[in-house]
Amino acid sequence: MHANETNIQLECLHHVPHSNWAYLYDKDTFHLRVRTKADNVNEVIAVTGDKYDWDTYHHEQKMLKVATDQFFDYWEVSVKPEHRRFSYGFRFHSGDETVWMIETGIFRQQPGPPGGYYDRPYIHEIDLFRAPEWAKSAIFYQIMPERFANGDPDNDPKEISIWGEKPATESFFGGDIQGIIDHLDYLADLGITAIYLTPIFEAPSNHKYDTTDYKKVDPHFGDLELLKTFVKAAHSRQIRVVLDAVFNHISAKSPQFRDVIEHGELSKFAGWFHIHSYPVEVREGNPNYDAFGFFAQMPKLNTSNPETREFLLDIAGYWLQEVGIDGWRLDVANEIDHAFWRDFRKLVKDINPEAYIIGEVWNDSLRWLQGDQFDSVMNYPLSDRLIEYIRNSELDARTFAAHISHLLMRYPQQANEVLFNLLASHDTPRILTLLEGDSQKLKLAIAFLFTFTGTPCIFYGDEIGLEGEADPDCRKCMIWEEEEQNRDLFECYKLLIHLRKEFPALRTGRFRFLKAEEQERPFVYERRDEHSHFTIWMNPSEQPASLSLALEGRWRDALNGEPVDAAEDHLQVHLEPFCFKILVKEQTQE
Amino acid sequence: MHANETNIQLECLHHVPHSNWAYLYDKDTFHLRVRTKADNVNEVIAVTGDKYDWDTYHHEQKMLKVATDQFFDYWEVSVKPEHRRFSYGFRFHSGDETVWMIETGIFRQQPGPPGGYYDRPYIHEIDLFRAPEWAKSAIFYQIMPERFANGDPDNDPKEISIWGEKPATESFFGGDIQGIIDHLDYLADLGITAIYLTPIFEAPSNHKYDTTDYKKVDPHFGDLELLKTFVKAAHSRQIRVVLDAVFNHISAKSPQFRDVIEHGELSKFAGWFHIHSYPVEVREGNPNYDAFGFFAQMPKLNTSNPETREFLLDIAGYWLQEVGIDGWRLDVANEIDHAFWRDFRKLVKDINPEAYIIGEVWNDSLRWLQGDQFDSVMNYPLSDRLIEYIRNSELDARTFAAHISHLLMRYPQQANEVLFNLLASHDTPRILTLLEGDSQKLKLAIAFLFTFTGTPCIFYGDEIGLEGEADPDCRKCMIWEEEEQNRDLFECYKLLIHLRKEFPALRTGRFRFLKAEEQERPFVYERRDEHSHFTIWMNPSEQPASLSLALEGRWRDALNGEPVDAAEDHLQVHLEPFCFKILVKEQTQE
Repeated sequence: MHANETNIQLECLHHVPHSNWAYLYDKDTFHLRVRTKADNVNEVIAVTGDKYDWDTYHHEQKMLKVATDQFFDYWEVSVKPEHRRFSYGFRFHSGDETVWMIETGIFRQQPGPPGGYYDRPYIHEIDLFRAPEWAKSAIFYQIMPERFANGDPDNDPKEISIWGEKPATESFFGGDIQGIIDHLDYLADLGITAIYLTPIFEAPSNHKYDTTDYKKVDPHFGDLELLKTFVKAAHSRQIRVVLDAVFNHISAKSPQFRDVIEHGELSKFAGWFHIHSYPVEVREGNPNYDAFGFFAQMPKLNTSNPETREFLLDIAGYWLQEVGIDGWRLDVANEIDHAFWRDFRKLVKDINPEAYIIGEVWNDSLRWLQGDQFDSVMNYPLSDRLIEYIRNSELDARTFAAHISHLLMRYPQQANEVLFNLLASHDTPRILTLLEGDSQKLKLAIAFLFTFTGTPCIFYGDEIGLEGEADPDCRKCMIWEEEEQNRDLFECYKLLIHLRKEFPALRTGRFRFLKAEEQERPFVYERRDEHSHFTIWMNPSEQPASLSLALEGRWRDALNGEPVDAAEDHLQVHLEPFCFKILVKEQTQE
Repeated sequence: MHANETNIQLECLHHVPHSNWAYLYDKDTFHLRVRTKADNVNEVIAVTGDKYDWDTYHHEQKMLKVATDQFFDYWEVSVKPEHRRFSYGFRFHSGDETVWMIETGIFRQQPGPPGGYYDRPYIHEIDLFRAPEWAKSAIFYQIMPERFANGDPDNDPKEISIWGEKPATESFFGGDIQGIIDHLDYLADLGITAIYLTPIFEAPSNHKYDTTDYKKVDPHFGDLELLKTFVKAAHSRQIRVVLDAVFNHISAKSPQFRDVIEHGELSKFAGWFHIHSYPVEVREGNPNYDAFGFFAQMPKLNTSNPETREFLLDIAGYWLQEVGIDGWRLDVANEIDHAFWRDFRKLVKDINPEAYIIGEVWNDSLRWLQGDQFDSVMNYPLSDRLIEYIRNSELDARTFAAHISHLLMRYPQQANEVLFNLLASHDTPRILTLLEGDSQKLKLAIAFLFTFTGTPCIFYGDEIGLEGEADPDCRKCMIWEEEEQNRDLFECYKLLIHLRKEFPALRTGRFRFLKAEEQERPFVYERRDEHSHFTIWMNPSEQPASLSLALEGRWRDALNGEPVDAAEDHLQVHLEPFCFKILVKEQTQE
């Protein structure tokens, strides 16, 4: 091993001229990102010009360091070309050293433009990835109808457990759509502006992810009329409704799959599935057809079969048009083909351009978030990192900031702004349980959630302190008796939601870590737009912390309005263990 | 600066779980690629498994080092999962050191699978990027009909120059489709299997990139019937035909644009263009509408206008169906929206799944080469690198190999196999001119072209030694008098074409550099499949070279059949200045 001859680490410079590194952000604005080794470069300049007339049209723009992860700094700039096209390169400075990077390589002197430069040939608005505007500001609430409230005992399943009992895998409790209608005022009071319902179509199970009839509301939940009533009632409170589309698989008890069992390859539905041999059977637990995982009761649908595709697309359109829902959450979305999702998006957006499409994808989701498929995905990687950090006192703030920054740099900004940020769901243990039942830690987590980029979602009951291990325990009944609710926690949710709704900066303002050191636990970040500037101070540690940052101006506590005592150019903040502060800069009035 | 504590350069490890790093190669085979710092790692293992049952289904596969560029080694492996899905991670070895990389980070010990691993959720054949099989084996020949042969003087433009005169920008020479028909036997003799014609639809210019009627063969070239005759005659010789689709812009003299000039914003074609103000005008050379570059006579079409899109798609389908052409080359393809190209591909492949779609894109083209848009692009980056190396004796073989390897790693393998590899075209100086008129250097270049991965294309006349500077000089008339042709060059083309057609290994076999050293000019690479093994030895230098490599077996010269005198495990090859040898391994007969 030997130290490099030059300071700038050339092999760490990275850019690709598409996807998350170069993308249209709005119809006039293009974002460029480039990567350098962390702390290796002082300044990065984006050099842009028109390849058909470089001399007349060329510009230099300083890039902003927006993120740092384990190894790299990330730099970003917005470009607004005169003629909807531009070629570009990057210039890096480190002390006296200068390096140029263009598509054909790295140079010590400026290569003659535009030959070999990166190229954005023409900006077409039709190719813009545009997510629904409302989703950027939404506060979501996820409900499993079977467990939220039993509003109509007449439609209960035959045998139901007593409300509030510990749920088993096969338990029924009688929750229904009427129950949700009955509690819309509760949700409005909390500040909710959108509801995501897990599946409500006819299915044998309590969770209803094993659909038997996609066009029928499950009779234990209600009927079409009641669903319409619910959506109208929600809309009248400015609450939008997103339903769950389970298109990867169907119930083995569905008429389609029963037909295949009965008629084998002669069934007109044989092409709807991925069947390896006939007769269809399950041997030693293994089906001879593709299923969700290895679960024989959920045969996988063949979404590339034209009939199956039409069948599913028709369902997607039907509920948008018939009931006026505001979007779809897509179950096991990653296991369905991309061609299907492109058709799906076209159909959905033709009916309602503001419909919000959220895929269930647990991994890196970039290939679905480029404008032709989803608007958003369930952001489990974010909750994993946040929960991991609050729980594990061995990790330091530098590591946490690196993880979060890395996630932000994976996607274009418009995806980040509507990523479905959740702390927990029906597929994970309850967040309070993950945080060892410590509501103080939960408050830290939600303070982060509601001041971070992306669309926050609350899993029903988390706001009043429901606990629970993984499924089935996390799917317990909502508690409605106020005296059994954690009202202090509820008020904290309410306050944070209110604050997020009041200030666009907390939704779409620039996010940046201001302080996240090695071997320290506390950290500080900012959210900022042209109207307001927030700094968020967090201490996920057992020790009190006193943090100081060079920040100009006068600041007040955004939650209680109290002014912060500080020097003009310097802010010192004291935090008790597992506490946070959200400060907002006073507007200077001139 | 300080040397790292560990040997494996962690910040150089790179993989993204999609695009050119992780892609479906054929319906059962997935390719994974990963990057390490050059010469930094001995061994890389891909660890794969089924996330729903890792214990039962998991594998380890050694990855092959397939390429090295300026900074990095690239490793590749093929994965064939049992259940059309797999999660994966990479293990790197360097001496005693072991490092794991999965989606959530880099670890010193194996992280418990499958949590946090990269994920390929389900392989759908419908998402496979499949290029036409025939294109992998095609030998293309590009013709500008105005300059190839005048087969019918009756359809000549009014004033034409004498065949063979130096062309000016506005010259006409009277070449036509009958001229091509007349010389099909010449092309068949050369070994050509596909023709790409620059535009043949009605247009005022000699190059016809300024279309006035997309449904009419230009009367100076012939008519519909003659075109059909030509395509049939070509097909009868197993020669396919690809036409040029100029959809980015239209002629300012087209009826559509004339209508906008006349009726302004009231014109029913106003939405077909990008017009900034009315009346439509050109001031000081600048049009007040978007054009190709700043060329007022070629107004840009608005391909996101539904009417315009339908108009253009109809044209694309018409010629496929009416005349039975075999594909489209897409002019200025990068300046048209992606949504248009997705619709275009669907339409074209519905009519003819084997149609070959080649975009004109001069830069990194990955975003068009993922299966939803093009099959191929014109591979100018390849010719740039090859020509640069042959011309510039300051560059060394290590640098050349780095450049070529870098290009190969930018795209999935099925794109590389049908990339449209050309040495020159109507948009560049002639290749012989670029190589200083030295036909020996040109032979080196074509030896590379015909033994490299991708679909080679000859610009008409290059094979008989036409020279010419940039447009208009490169668009000179074809020479038909044999005594004025460079027949030695022609025979060299013919021999190399014949060899490529005989051996699939030269088309789709694995490409790898075997020798490409710093401060040396000669280099050696191999092409190899399960049936044959070639080594190609090149000496682009003024000095003779004697090269040796540890290679087992007996070898013979593939062009003249002569055996190569060599030790059992060692091959020594002598090359005169600017000469090459193509050796093929003798099959052992047992």
